[in-house]
Amino acid sequence: MASGKPASGEDSLIARYFRPLATDPGAFRLDDDAAALKPDGSDIVVTTDAIVEGVHYLPGDPPGTIARKALRVNLSDLAAKGATPAGFVLTLALRTVDDDWLKPFAQALGEDAASFNCPLLGGDTVSTPGPAMISITAFGRVPRGKMVHRVGARPGDRVVVTGTIGDAALGLDILKGGAAAAALAGDAAAREMLTGRYRVPQPRNALATAVRDHAHAAMDVSDGLAGDLAKLCAASGVSAVIDTPSVPLSPAAARLVAQGATNLETLISGGDDYEILCAIPEARFEAFEQAARRAGVAVTSIGTIIAGAATPSFLDARGKELVLTRRSFSHF
Amino acid sequence: MASGKPASGEDSLIARYFRPLATDPGAFRLDDDAAALKPDGSDIVVTTDAIVEGVHYLPGDPPGTIARKALRVNLSDLAAKGATPAGFVLTLALRTVDDDWLKPFAQALGEDAASFNCPLLGGDTVSTPGPAMISITAFGRVPRGKMVHRVGARPGDRVVVTGTIGDAALGLDILKGGAAAAALAGDAAAREMLTGRYRVPQPRNALATAVRDHAHAAMDVSDGLAGDLAKLCAASGVSAVIDTPSVPLSPAAARLVAQGATNLETLISGGDDYEILCAIPEARFEAFEQAARRAGVAVTSIGTIIAGAATPSFLDARGKELVLTRRSFSHF
Repeated sequence: MASGKPASGEDSLIARYFRPLATDPGAFRLDDDAAALKPDGSDIVVTTDAIVEGVHYLPGDPPGTIARKALRVNLSDLAAKGATPAGFVLTLALRTVDDDWLKPFAQALGEDAASFNCPLLGGDTVSTPGPAMISITAFGRVPRGKMVHRVGARPGDRVVVTGTIGDAALGLDILKGGAAAAALAGDAAAREMLTGRYRVPQPRNALATAVRDHAHAAMDVSDGLAGDLAKLCAASGVSAVIDTPSVPLSPAAARLVAQGATNLETLISGGDDYEILCAIPEARFEAFEQAARRAGVAVTSIGTIIAGAATPSFLDARGKELVLTRRSFSHF
Repeated sequence: MASGKPASGEDSLIARYFRPLATDPGAFRLDDDAAALKPDGSDIVVTTDAIVEGVHYLPGDPPGTIARKALRVNLSDLAAKGATPAGFVLTLALRTVDDDWLKPFAQALGEDAASFNCPLLGGDTVSTPGPAMISITAFGRVPRGKMVHRVGARPGDRVVVTGTIGDAALGLDILKGGAAAAALAGDAAAREMLTGRYRVPQPRNALATAVRDHAHAAMDVSDGLAGDLAKLCAASGVSAVIDTPSVPLSPAAARLVAQGATNLETLISGGDDYEILCAIPEARFEAFEQAARRAGVAVTSIGTIIAGAATPSFLDARGKELVLTRRSFSHF
C-alpha cells in the first residue's frame, strides 16, 4: 500500500485485464467512476443485452466465445439500427476471480472491441453466488434522426434477411446432444460450424450503412425469425407473407432438414441467429443488394410485407401455411 | 395472436410494467431494439452499476427499495461527476415473473425516475436460475469537457463529504442482527433510519452543479470512505490527512460509537454511503458551502489534501493515526 494504490481484488482485476481494452480517451483508463461520450452532432443509439450462464451460453463454453457473444449480441442490435459502433460498458457478475477464465475472456473481448471498432468505456465487476452474467450496454452513432426502427415497414416492401437462419438453434441442439448431434455424428466440420454459430454470432455491422440508406424498418433476429418478424410487423402495423423455402439455410442445416433430423419450423422459431431482418422497398432492393455485395454480406428476399394485422404467414412450397406452435424464444 | 402482437411473457412484462416509465421520446415506447440520445452539444457521462440479491441487497428487501437502490447508486455516480441525469437502461435478471414483486418494483422505479428526472430509455429482461440482478447504465449531461474526475485533487484542497458516513454499514449490521441491532433494541426510529440508509441511498444530485463549479476532483463514496479516498488520492497522485472526529455522523451512529457498539474504523470503511467525496480548493470552499446550503445538502470539511504518495492518514482526536485493517469493501 506504500504506493498509495488501494490493492483491492476488484481494482487489480480491472487494471490487469480490462484497462488494456480501454483505448478510448473517454474511458479515462477506467480510473474514474464514469466515461464520457463526446458529441459530434450524431444521435447516440443505446442498446443493452445480457447473457446468463446456463441460459444464453453453456457453463462449459470457452471464456473467449462467451466474451465475443456478450459483445456481439449488442453489436448486432447496433447493425440493425443502422448505427456505427462507438463503445460499450461491461458489467461482469462472477462467483470468483479465476485468472484462467478471465485472461482469455478479456483477450477475446479486446480483439472483438478492436475489430468492430467498439472500445470498452467502463464497467462494473460484482460478485454473485449464482451463475455468471455478462451485461453490456453498447453505443452507436447515426446521423440525427436516422436510426432505423421496427416501425416503418409498408405493404409491398420485400422482407429480407442476412446470412442463414437456424444454424445457432442446431448448434445448441448439438451441444445438448440432440437429434442434430446424432445426424452429424460423422461430420465434425458441420458440427463445429453449427456450434460456432451458436457460440459466436457474426453481427452484420458491415451492412449498417446499407440498412440505414435503404430499409424502411429493421431489427436483428435474436429470438427466432418467425417471432421477430411478428414483432416488426406488429410495430409497423402490417403483416407479411413468407415463402418458407426461400429462407436461407446453410448446407448443413439444409441437409439436416432433408434427413428429417430437424424441420423448417424449428429453424425459423429457434433463437440466436443474430442476422438482420429488414423491410426494403421494392424500388431500393437492387441498390440494397449491390451495397450488401460490396459489404460482403449475403442477403435474401424471403417474402413481402402486406397490409393487415394478421400474424405473418409462412407458406410451404405448395403455398400452404405452416402451423407454428412456437414462434420464438421467450424468457418467461 | 389475432392482433398481430406476439404475446410472449417477456413482451407483456415489459408492456405492463415498464412502458409507463419510458416517457422520453428517445425510448420509442420500448417498442424498439435500441434507444436514442439526442445530441445537445454536451458530453454524455455514462456510468454502470449492478446490484445482486444477497450481495448488494437482502433477499427479503422490499421490491420498491431494491428498485430505488439500483437506480440511485447510478444517480450517485452522476452527481459526483457533476452531471445532470438524462436517462437510464435497465437489465433485469429474474428467476420468475412474479407480479407481486414486479408491480411495486416498477412503481418505485418510475417514481424515482420521475423525481430525479432520469427516464427509462430501454432495457433487457432475462431469466436466470440464480439470484436476481439489476444492472443499470445511466446517462448524464455535462458541458463539454466539464465532467469532474477522480484526478485533479491538489495539495491544500479541503477534503469534503456530504451527509453522514457509516449509517448504511450500521443499517446492514442491524438487518443481519449484529451488535448495532442489540444496542438499538429499544429505539425503532433509529433502527429504521439506519436500515433505510442501507436500503435506499440518498444520492446528492442536487449538489451536482456545485461540484462541477468548485471541485478539483470528486467521486461518490460507495465502498467505504477510507478506501474511496485512497482511490481518489491515488488517481490524483496526492495524499491526505483526515481529522477523523470531523467525519460527520448521524446522531444514531454517534450514539453507537459512544456506547462502544461500533467504532469509527468500522464506519469509515463500511460501504453503501453514496455520499459525495470531493476536493475543494480553499479559495472556493465558502462559495461551495453556500451553494450546498442553497441545494439543501449538508457538507463537512474533514481534512486536507497533501503532497505525497502515502495512503491517506486518519488521525484521532489526539493526532494519532488510526490503524485501518480494512479500508473498503471489495467484491473479490
